[in-house]
Amino acid sequence: MARLGINQYGKAQTHLVRVYREGPQHDLRDLTVSVALAGAFEAVHVDGDNSAVLATDTQKNTVYAFAREHPVGTPEAFAAKLARHFLGGAVTRARVEAREATWTRLNDHAFTQSDRAVRVGVAVAEGDRLWFAGGIEGLVVLKTTHSEFHGFPRDRYTTLRETTDRVLATEVSARWRHDGEADFDAVRDALLDAFAGHHSLSLQQTLYAMGSAVVEACPPVDEIRLSMPNKHHFVVDLSPFGLENEHEVFHADDRPYGLIEAAVLRDRAPDPGPLWDPYPLL
Amino acid sequence: MARLGINQYGKAQTHLVRVYREGPQHDLRDLTVSVALAGAFEAVHVDGDNSAVLATDTQKNTVYAFAREHPVGTPEAFAAKLARHFLGGAVTRARVEAREATWTRLNDHAFTQSDRAVRVGVAVAEGDRLWFAGGIEGLVVLKTTHSEFHGFPRDRYTTLRETTDRVLATEVSARWRHDGEADFDAVRDALLDAFAGHHSLSLQQTLYAMGSAVVEACPPVDEIRLSMPNKHHFVVDLSPFGLENEHEVFHADDRPYGLIEAAVLRDRAPDPGPLWDPYPLL
Amino acid sequence: MARLGINQYGKAQTHLVRVYREGPQHDLRDLTVSVALAGAFEAVHVDGDNSAVLATDTQKNTVYAFAREHPVGTPEAFAAKLARHFLGGAVTRARVEAREATWTRLNDHAFTQSDRAVRVGVAVAEGDRLWFAGGIEGLVVLKTTHSEFHGFPRDRYTTLRETTDRVLATEVSARWRHDGEADFDAVRDALLDAFAGHHSLSLQQTLYAMGSAVVEACPPVDEIRLSMPNKHHFVVDLSPFGLENEHEVFHADDRPYGLIEAAVLRDRAPDPGPLWDPYPLL
Amino acid sequence: MARLGINQYGKAQTHLVRVYREGPQHDLRDLTVSVALAGAFEAVHVDGDNSAVLATDTQKNTVYAFAREHPVGTPEAFAAKLARHFLGGAVTRARVEAREATWTRLNDHAFTQSDRAVRVGVAVAEGDRLWFAGGIEGLVVLKTTHSEFHGFPRDRYTTLRETTDRVLATEVSARWRHDGEADFDAVRDALLDAFAGHHSLSLQQTLYAMGSAVVEACPPVDEIRLSMPNKHHFVVDLSPFGLENEHEVFHADDRPYGLIEAAVLRDRAPDPGPLWDPYPLL
Repeated sequence: MARLGINQYGKAQTHLVRVYREGPQHDLRDLTVSVALAGAFEAVHVDGDNSAVLATDTQKNTVYAFAREHPVGTPEAFAAKLARHFLGGAVTRARVEAREATWTRLNDHAFTQSDRAVRVGVAVAEGDRLWFAGGIEGLVVLKTTHSEFHGFPRDRYTTLRETTDRVLATEVSARWRHDGEADFDAVRDALLDAFAGHHSLSLQQTLYAMGSAVVEACPPVDEIRLSMPNKHHFVVDLSPFGLENEHEVFHADDRPYGLIEAAVLRDRAPDPGPLWDPYPLL
Repeated sequence: MARLGINQYGKAQTHLVRVYREGPQHDLRDLTVSVALAGAFEAVHVDGDNSAVLATDTQKNTVYAFAREHPVGTPEAFAAKLARHFLGGAVTRARVEAREATWTRLNDHAFTQSDRAVRVGVAVAEGDRLWFAGGIEGLVVLKTTHSEFHGFPRDRYTTLRETTDRVLATEVSARWRHDGEADFDAVRDALLDAFAGHHSLSLQQTLYAMGSAVVEACPPVDEIRLSMPNKHHFVVDLSPFGLENEHEVFHADDRPYGLIEAAVLRDRAPDPGPLWDPYPLL
Repeated sequence: MARLGINQYGKAQTHLVRVYREGPQHDLRDLTVSVALAGAFEAVHVDGDNSAVLATDTQKNTVYAFAREHPVGTPEAFAAKLARHFLGGAVTRARVEAREATWTRLNDHAFTQSDRAVRVGVAVAEGDRLWFAGGIEGLVVLKTTHSEFHGFPRDRYTTLRETTDRVLATEVSARWRHDGEADFDAVRDALLDAFAGHHSLSLQQTLYAMGSAVVEACPPVDEIRLSMPNKHHFVVDLSPFGLENEHEVFHADDRPYGLIEAAVLRDRAPDPGPLWDPYPLL
Repeated sequence: MARLGINQYGKAQTHLVRVYREGPQHDLRDLTVSVALAGAFEAVHVDGDNSAVLATDTQKNTVYAFAREHPVGTPEAFAAKLARHFLGGAVTRARVEAREATWTRLNDHAFTQSDRAVRVGVAVAEGDRLWFAGGIEGLVVLKTTHSEFHGFPRDRYTTLRETTDRVLATEVSARWRHDGEADFDAVRDALLDAFAGHHSLSLQQTLYAMGSAVVEACPPVDEIRLSMPNKHHFVVDLSPFGLENEHEVFHADDRPYGLIEAAVLRDRAPDPGPLWDPYPLL
């Protein structure tokens, strides 16, 4: 009566810190790695037969061992090495995501994790194919002007006033599909430059401008997906206190918020394969 | 060179509390509603033309107004009413998710929000079709025995010992696709009963048993998707202190954790349509 | 030029799960234990001399071992056993806090952690003295009426309108100083009953009524400290949509929020000793 | 039978963004302001008499209005202006805390909030006296070597091995008491320099070195209080895989963690007055 549908499993959030201690100047990598494996796993679900189930504990061990046995490289490269390793047996598809916290050097062996944003690298392996995504989380940006919003339809429930000057703020989450060679800094800089330089008529337009800028600036990128909450900044009504407020004092609200999401693709981008399959599933 | 791909937008997390004050005994509903609209939105992304963009502020207003104009009913029913309303113009698909915090009555007009778990209702509207999902988040369960894990393959990186008796704990997230008439309590009870009664050979098997139990117990449910982190409880080695520890003292670890996810479908379940499309996109 | 001031150290948040497996019906305790030790610790701060520093790792081990060697009892009792143990050597004061998640039985060996609120027990040991506090976190309550707020002063910056009927909601955090024998359920029930039954003229008055109810109902309690955020529920203006809203549709806002805090003492309560010293320090 | 003890109330977390738009280059301040007032508030607690209760809504309005009427200046200065304003009537003590998120300029009117750490400014007003604290939250630092831990006492529950080389990592929270003129950057730089340059025999010693460095480098600072969780980095045992691990691969654990807290004072520091009174109370 019931049957198994889509499924995946793996160890999530193995927090690995890799220190390189060759010479007096040490280096540091800080990666939180999540693995998801899929394939022929009916037996374990239906019968509790674990003979095909690589234990998630083993996956964790593998993450740590690989950090010793192989150079880490980019998050995507490290993810790819792991993903390829996990293929085989029942596993026909392996997805590995590595989230990297960036540390700024203070001296030869001391660091500070000053940056709010997190870098992401994803690799999905299937057969002898590999798909890559880079990503960023927590890139918070704001502009104090050059943002308008008007011309939207008005229905019975519309009260919002049109504006030709508002604060626009968002926390960018992005994933870009690429050939494994996209330069993270180039993507981030393209995002920041486009946000800063764009005269916005809507957050959708800004998102599209940012995505297009990445596609244009970074040839290895075939597609970028952006999720951008509209972090509303409301002009506070100071008139009861006899004060003007010409877009100077704002209440930064938490919820609700607009959520604008879209993909921007390079013309003739190849098929994404399983790269965008949901992880986690829910 | 670049073009728009998949996209959606809407107001997220409008926190609505609806009080019914007919008679001395008041009633209370507490819903956090998120809307995502999709359709013909090239113009706004590419040109900043907002003529088709129902403002997310209007969406928020509509949520509040509908709570006054219509009975709320189940989260799915309320979501469906909103989703259908938003269709039209450029909007060819509307997704609405309502997360309900449950309150327990203390007296005629006082309540306590004692329950850790949150109920979810989703509706997706397209043309004159509607798809529904119910859901639950934060359903934490644990069993002190009747959980084994052995027979898994051993490779170079495997150190985990086999066990015939372990603590099994998870925090269930679930979404079930149904015809709009599934009874929330019946689903939750089936999940709890199956977890409690199942002799587990792996978390995958327990997940499948829970999903199957729902499909069997609840005819309106065509599919259930479960995401179950394995909240590891490690037996503490007390031997250095001259103490035995026969599965009595555990360290409950946070990270990393196994993450087990699967769908269980009713045989001949209809096509899910757009119900499982990702929200948020990233 | 510089000198050491107030200081304390210890292991925070050791998450212990204790299973009792006598007979077929198992029992379960889930405690997260934090230790803070103070005393003659100049040497370690100034000179790095660790000869007096009981390692926080040892403290963690002790928590687990004590859960095997001793009955856990109330969180306060378990905390007291640990606190007394840590006294000696340089340690002249030991503070232990145990936060207990409560689990509801599903069957002989399966449980669900349904309750949103967390129970707290604190013990502070100094010489041969002991001080106790019980506590609760996350007790969320709301009343749909019987709450007013008026008669407050109006200055240049006041715009709030007076009301004789509003929603009142809060998430109670409480700590009560007692002799070690206060019954947790009695305190929680007194808090809930007082909240539910009180006709509120302000949240301060409600807080005081709740605290007084505990002092009256629970003789072992000498003092209770309450921290109660005013979780604002704003009546949504539906008039632009031609709808009345007689306190039926509310926006539950997140921030900012009022924060009301006070202690209620029993007349002739003894000195609290070091019980209320801050933990953590910042 | 019951009486009121220590109490305070106010509006917490008013999130203010102030934009300065003189000329083409805009400036931006982002402050989250919390107010706590104390004084003669028996009447409202015991009788619900609000005649002395400045509404928290009014406090919020005042924060916004002051951002328009006055230059913001340092967080401490803005807090002081508000604290002084709230004195009077029943209010005999006012505490204001402003937490500032820092934004980095991208161009004339666009910014990114790249910094993980948050700056804090506190002012407490009483009569015509003022006390100030500066602060920082979320200053994450790590050193890959120059950290030892040995010579600690061993009891029955001690299993930790001594080490002359470990990773030391923490997330510094600090508050420094000063005359209102301490330079934030100077304090932060002193903290970072001391952490980086110190050869650590224990986290306590490192904390004290950091606090002393601030007291020495910043004459306006009379006291600094530091709270430093020991973010444990455990060397992963790779020997089962035939791999050496000479402090190269670490598991960064979440909980439990050591928590080291202390104050470092300037000799002959004046009395702190009410500056360190707890906020929030619980």
